[in-house]
Amino acid sequence: VLVPTEQDRRAAPAGLRVDVYTGDGDPAGDLGDVTFYVLPYARPDAVQLLPGLTGLRAVQLLTAGYEAVQPLLPAGVALHNAAGLHDASTAEMAMALILAAQREVPRWALNQRDGAWQRDFTRSLAGSRVLVVGYGGIGKALEARLLPFEVEVVRVASRARPEERIHGVDELPALLPGADIVALAVPETPATRGLIGGRELALMPDDALLVNVGRGSAVDQAALLAEGGRIRAALDVLRDEPPGPNDPVWTAPGVFFSPHIGGGSATFVPRSRKFIAEQLRRWAAGEALLNRVS
Amino acid sequence: VLVPTEQDRRAAPAGLRVDVYTGDGDPAGDLGDVTFYVLPYARPDAVQLLPGLTGLRAVQLLTAGYEAVQPLLPAGVALHNAAGLHDASTAEMAMALILAAQREVPRWALNQRDGAWQRDFTRSLAGSRVLVVGYGGIGKALEARLLPFEVEVVRVASRARPEERIHGVDELPALLPGADIVALAVPETPATRGLIGGRELALMPDDALLVNVGRGSAVDQAALLAEGGRIRAALDVLRDEPPGPNDPVWTAPGVFFSPHIGGGSATFVPRSRKFIAEQLRRWAAGEALLNRVS
Repeated sequence: VLVPTEQDRRAAPAGLRVDVYTGDGDPAGDLGDVTFYVLPYARPDAVQLLPGLTGLRAVQLLTAGYEAVQPLLPAGVALHNAAGLHDASTAEMAMALILAAQREVPRWALNQRDGAWQRDFTRSLAGSRVLVVGYGGIGKALEARLLPFEVEVVRVASRARPEERIHGVDELPALLPGADIVALAVPETPATRGLIGGRELALMPDDALLVNVGRGSAVDQAALLAEGGRIRAALDVLRDEPPGPNDPVWTAPGVFFSPHIGGGSATFVPRSRKFIAEQLRRWAAGEALLNRVS
Repeated sequence: VLVPTEQDRRAAPAGLRVDVYTGDGDPAGDLGDVTFYVLPYARPDAVQLLPGLTGLRAVQLLTAGYEAVQPLLPAGVALHNAAGLHDASTAEMAMALILAAQREVPRWALNQRDGAWQRDFTRSLAGSRVLVVGYGGIGKALEARLLPFEVEVVRVASRARPEERIHGVDELPALLPGADIVALAVPETPATRGLIGGRELALMPDDALLVNVGRGSAVDQAALLAEGGRIRAALDVLRDEPPGPNDPVWTAPGVFFSPHIGGGSATFVPRSRKFIAEQLRRWAAGEALLNRVS
């Protein structure tokens, strides 16, 4: 078994042979002996080990998304994701982005550096109608954090569930014109690619805010920039990460971005350790692992 | 009667003589006729009218704090504040500052301007212990917004009320060493001046966060800067607003500030209009005004 940290190794059950691969350098031991590989978090290069793991039977990702890894696995290797482990961290980042945009935190940071003082009152979050698009773990955690702010939350998911007051994405054209804030927390799937394109952006009111903490592919970024600031945006995920040096997103009016740090803040660490320990216990005991996705 | 906006004038009861004074230029009408003056919000110069208002009987402020205006009023003039009208806006700003600091929004804004990409994972709010110092309207509104973030809120007010789990400020020395975040929402009074000084800062753990949305006087700013970044700070209020051009607060490590915009965001406007309309109705009807403070 390969795990990403020494702490994970120490938490493994006695009798299980466990080595550490942090994503740097070469892993210890014979790669052909590895049956279960827990990939290190936010180290895309860690997949390069996969072709050498000739005895592999199971893979554990520490991300919720698995679209990039699935095609790399031979038939018969079970894939598991980390659904749920990032919900609190990612929903918190969505709130940080929403509040930063409404209360203009990026502007005050730049003003402070410039030695400039402009006491201009801002928008509020209170009184806003917020579309939460994607009503899985992150969407629910975001809704819980939004509600005390005196907002109206409108739930949107891939399929309508009227008994839970959840709208389907096919209702977006009717919902977007009434939205002050549209917060995206959807996985990358064929159905979510380009979910918010030029047509959807055109339906949003002037000065509305688009927030994205899911995957950059959900937004047609060229269409967003073509709005020229009419729609504000606060994005933790982008089409290209990092953007190229000449990407207009760096200087686009009304667009603020952070470097895809929604899911991985400090609160993720204890949740990840606990989860890996449970998966190793199950692996050693021959029980089914949690979160199998394929 | 003098009111700050044309909308306020139009909402006044028939029969009441009302002029508008926005804080710019000279007010219309004979100042000696003014019996009730509603000062415009965030226009400190508006007090300059007071000496000319020889028939004045009542003053309405649109701020919660009244320490600057009270000494300027002749005996017999009733003073009223706007307690409660800013609670939602100010608590929202406190949350914006807390989340911006934990998730490093100012850093990403500066990086975006610099064309720099650093994908470093940050602190979380989740799992933090937050001291809410000042348990009035703003403090309660802040607590309501904090709780869904998986935090522990510790209530602190001027006097302990054990039946409501509220600690007294005299317990701060015992509470500060266990605080991840200290959020100040206290009015300016002799008791709150310098509430957080060198002694209190020294009791806070390394890397703790100090947030202030009340009055700048509650923090000994020189002592804060002397910490050299050991204590992080996110401040909507400062000792001097604006800071002087050579004030070290502009470049202090770990210190972020916004230009005292906590109370005055968009959500304040409808609340203020409704409140002024009610005060004018009471004035015309000869009823006691709300929120008399002296």
